[in-house]
Amino acid sequence: MEKMTLEATLTRLLEQKKYKSLRDVMAVMQPFDLAEYLNELEAEKCLILFRLLPKELAADVFVELDDDSQEQLIGAFSDKELSQVINELYVDDAADILDEMPASVVKRVLSQARPEMRKMINEVLNYPDDSAGSIMNTEYISLVAGFTVGEAIAHVRKTGIDKETVNTMYVIDKKRHLLGALPIRSLIFARAEQLVGDIMDKTDIVKATTLDDKEEVALLFDNYDLTEIPIVDKEDRLVGIVTVDDAIDVLQQEATEDIEMMAAITPTDKPYLKMSVGEIVIKRIPWLMLLMITATFTSIIIASFENALAAVPVLTAFIPMLMGTGGNCGSQSSVAAIRNLAIGDIEFSDLFRVVFKEFRVSILCGAALAVVSFVKIMLIDKMLMGKEITVIIALVISFTLIATVIIAKLVGCTLPLLAKKAGFDPAVMASPFITTTVDALSLLIYFGFAAMLLGV
Amino acid sequence: MEKMTLEATLTRLLEQKKYKSLRDVMAVMQPFDLAEYLNELEAEKCLILFRLLPKELAADVFVELDDDSQEQLIGAFSDKELSQVINELYVDDAADILDEMPASVVKRVLSQARPEMRKMINEVLNYPDDSAGSIMNTEYISLVAGFTVGEAIAHVRKTGIDKETVNTMYVIDKKRHLLGALPIRSLIFARAEQLVGDIMDKTDIVKATTLDDKEEVALLFDNYDLTEIPIVDKEDRLVGIVTVDDAIDVLQQEATEDIEMMAAITPTDKPYLKMSVGEIVIKRIPWLMLLMITATFTSIIIASFENALAAVPVLTAFIPMLMGTGGNCGSQSSVAAIRNLAIGDIEFSDLFRVVFKEFRVSILCGAALAVVSFVKIMLIDKMLMGKEITVIIALVISFTLIATVIIAKLVGCTLPLLAKKAGFDPAVMASPFITTTVDALSLLIYFGFAAMLLGV
Repeated sequence: MEKMTLEATLTRLLEQKKYKSLRDVMAVMQPFDLAEYLNELEAEKCLILFRLLPKELAADVFVELDDDSQEQLIGAFSDKELSQVINELYVDDAADILDEMPASVVKRVLSQARPEMRKMINEVLNYPDDSAGSIMNTEYISLVAGFTVGEAIAHVRKTGIDKETVNTMYVIDKKRHLLGALPIRSLIFARAEQLVGDIMDKTDIVKATTLDDKEEVALLFDNYDLTEIPIVDKEDRLVGIVTVDDAIDVLQQEATEDIEMMAAITPTDKPYLKMSVGEIVIKRIPWLMLLMITATFTSIIIASFENALAAVPVLTAFIPMLMGTGGNCGSQSSVAAIRNLAIGDIEFSDLFRVVFKEFRVSILCGAALAVVSFVKIMLIDKMLMGKEITVIIALVISFTLIATVIIAKLVGCTLPLLAKKAGFDPAVMASPFITTTVDALSLLIYFGFAAMLLGV
Repeated sequence: MEKMTLEATLTRLLEQKKYKSLRDVMAVMQPFDLAEYLNELEAEKCLILFRLLPKELAADVFVELDDDSQEQLIGAFSDKELSQVINELYVDDAADILDEMPASVVKRVLSQARPEMRKMINEVLNYPDDSAGSIMNTEYISLVAGFTVGEAIAHVRKTGIDKETVNTMYVIDKKRHLLGALPIRSLIFARAEQLVGDIMDKTDIVKATTLDDKEEVALLFDNYDLTEIPIVDKEDRLVGIVTVDDAIDVLQQEATEDIEMMAAITPTDKPYLKMSVGEIVIKRIPWLMLLMITATFTSIIIASFENALAAVPVLTAFIPMLMGTGGNCGSQSSVAAIRNLAIGDIEFSDLFRVVFKEFRVSILCGAALAVVSFVKIMLIDKMLMGKEITVIIALVISFTLIATVIIAKLVGCTLPLLAKKAGFDPAVMASPFITTTVDALSLLIYFGFAAMLLGV
């Protein structure tokens, strides 16, 4: 409720052009809340409010704005304003913002950055989108092992004021090789004359390289309960740090992407409410088309068994149930594989363990469904749909269920693991491929059993 | 590769009973890696290795073990060992571990905890499972505003050594009301004689109450880029902190739960590879049964239109495609709603915006699918399935597609938002309810158009 009132107050003050009060109110707000408010304003009003912000808060708010608002503001900024904002940003945030912008905007922004800042941003921008390098911050505090604690504190005071985090400092040698990590709490607990090299953590430091997959680096934060991870280059030289806020973003984005892919949506970074109807359609229609067209297989199979269906019309009534059950079993298994790959609980080497487990699960599930289905058909469906239903038909359906469930679960758990091995995102295997395969197979099995047992 | 070799080395040393070397090797390993190794060992070997660990590392490793290994170890511990481990744990970790244990184990563990520790663990255990209170740590550093920076540093040194984090300290008054937050970096940057009250952050501190939903508290970390959040009681008194590692766990677990629910699996905390086949079946079979039984509706609908299908048999061939497309459209929309609710990008109050957007999306998607389907049917299906297919049949299918897509998308986006409003997990709406509704409706629409245009 509080946030509502605050936003209403800002709107009121803006209408009344009480700029001094606006500035005072905004100065005590959280950047994220302020950005959420500015995102909803028209471009002109957004610019007025943004110009009222103190320099440092302005940069913090700018980072939190959505892509559209950022691009609008950049377009409206004078060169001087642009330069102020860009040079206040942390390198990783600046690179993140520019990554989404058109080339002309990137060029203008970089032209206004300090030369050193420009160099760092370019470095981060040059790493592949899915690498740890692309989300790292090149501004961090490094110490040498020979510093006393007193010297280290003096060094932090001198160089740390505009760093994103000083929670952990990194100890390097002359060639910038990573020797150890020093949490800031160690500086507080140590005596002034102790040496950094003596109090630093040096055993088995969790680190990553610039080209490591950013999702795997994000998982390190989860596994090892860290708030920052040092990033080294191929020669083990320290080049940056990744902070936990970026790791959370990566994990959340990865989960969203997987969920979207499972539901046959092309993933996007853009917030749902900010996407136009056309953009949403473009993310969804290709998959719907693909799935509709691959359903041609099922149509052809059904059409080619028209005579069987004409001879025993009630068989038709169970097609959706059989295909649906196959689809559900397949997605249960594929989702188990996809999510456990994503959180690092299984790897490709677990293929046989997973397949064996799913095989046993599928036999139990298939048998249980077959029994319940048989009883249900003989008791309920026979009553509702009349005497067309015979024991043999119920058996055909039960046998089909068992076979379909087994195949669906095996296909469902195998494809994502194979995709991972082949270097694709396992989640892409979730919907279309498994559904199409399982649908076609379940129909063939159904008509196969029908031919065998009913002679149609 | 490094981890593999290390594990092999440990196994080798254990076979050779070289306990001293084992201890030395384990002492430099990360608790998480060590726990992953111990989880895979037999109970007896696990106990041997665990007993070799230095006291503090033992507690860190214990936290990272899976539930089964923890319970086994607790069962094998002497009272003294148990007491050592439990009193070394952070309160939130201890509560988290005990939350999963049988009552008898909990009782024994608590009997071995220091009285103060027991009180704190009980306090955390008493909060509801989904509340911020249940994941908070009651050990944190509090300061009074009147402290000088020098006094604050002395206080941290005295009380902070065994705290989970000292990255942020909290400033409270005599009644423990939260006045401000002091990042540890401020202590480093300030002069010794400055007052804590003067340098602390006091404007709009992000905080939460003990009974706030832990998922919403976890989202605060994501939105505000924090590493800890103070937790206050109803009277705004500071009672604990939540740290970012727990927030990441909550976010990851929430995403896994949503994904599982979307795939019709009952969520569980237990790692997939640790679950028995029976446990997996129990998480999956109820949904498969439910979906199979609700498919009775579609069977009845098809059976009751048997005459229509007998008159125009080729209509049957398109049933799976139509129901499939409806299902896919429904899950696209429901997933968009579910995930955006989970990451806080939409709320129930956005219902009409979402519905209006999905309505426009569905018209475009429906129209595109209808046109492509019409052309495909006349060009490809007619060729493959023979002259049974007429323009009117293709029109029936196209009209059904449009209507089904619109209904599927509206049902898909509405149900999760209504579930959220009613206090349920939106993800529970994903699979069964939407599928059943959309399947039945799409069939009724299909036979409706067939009756109108084909007179069957």
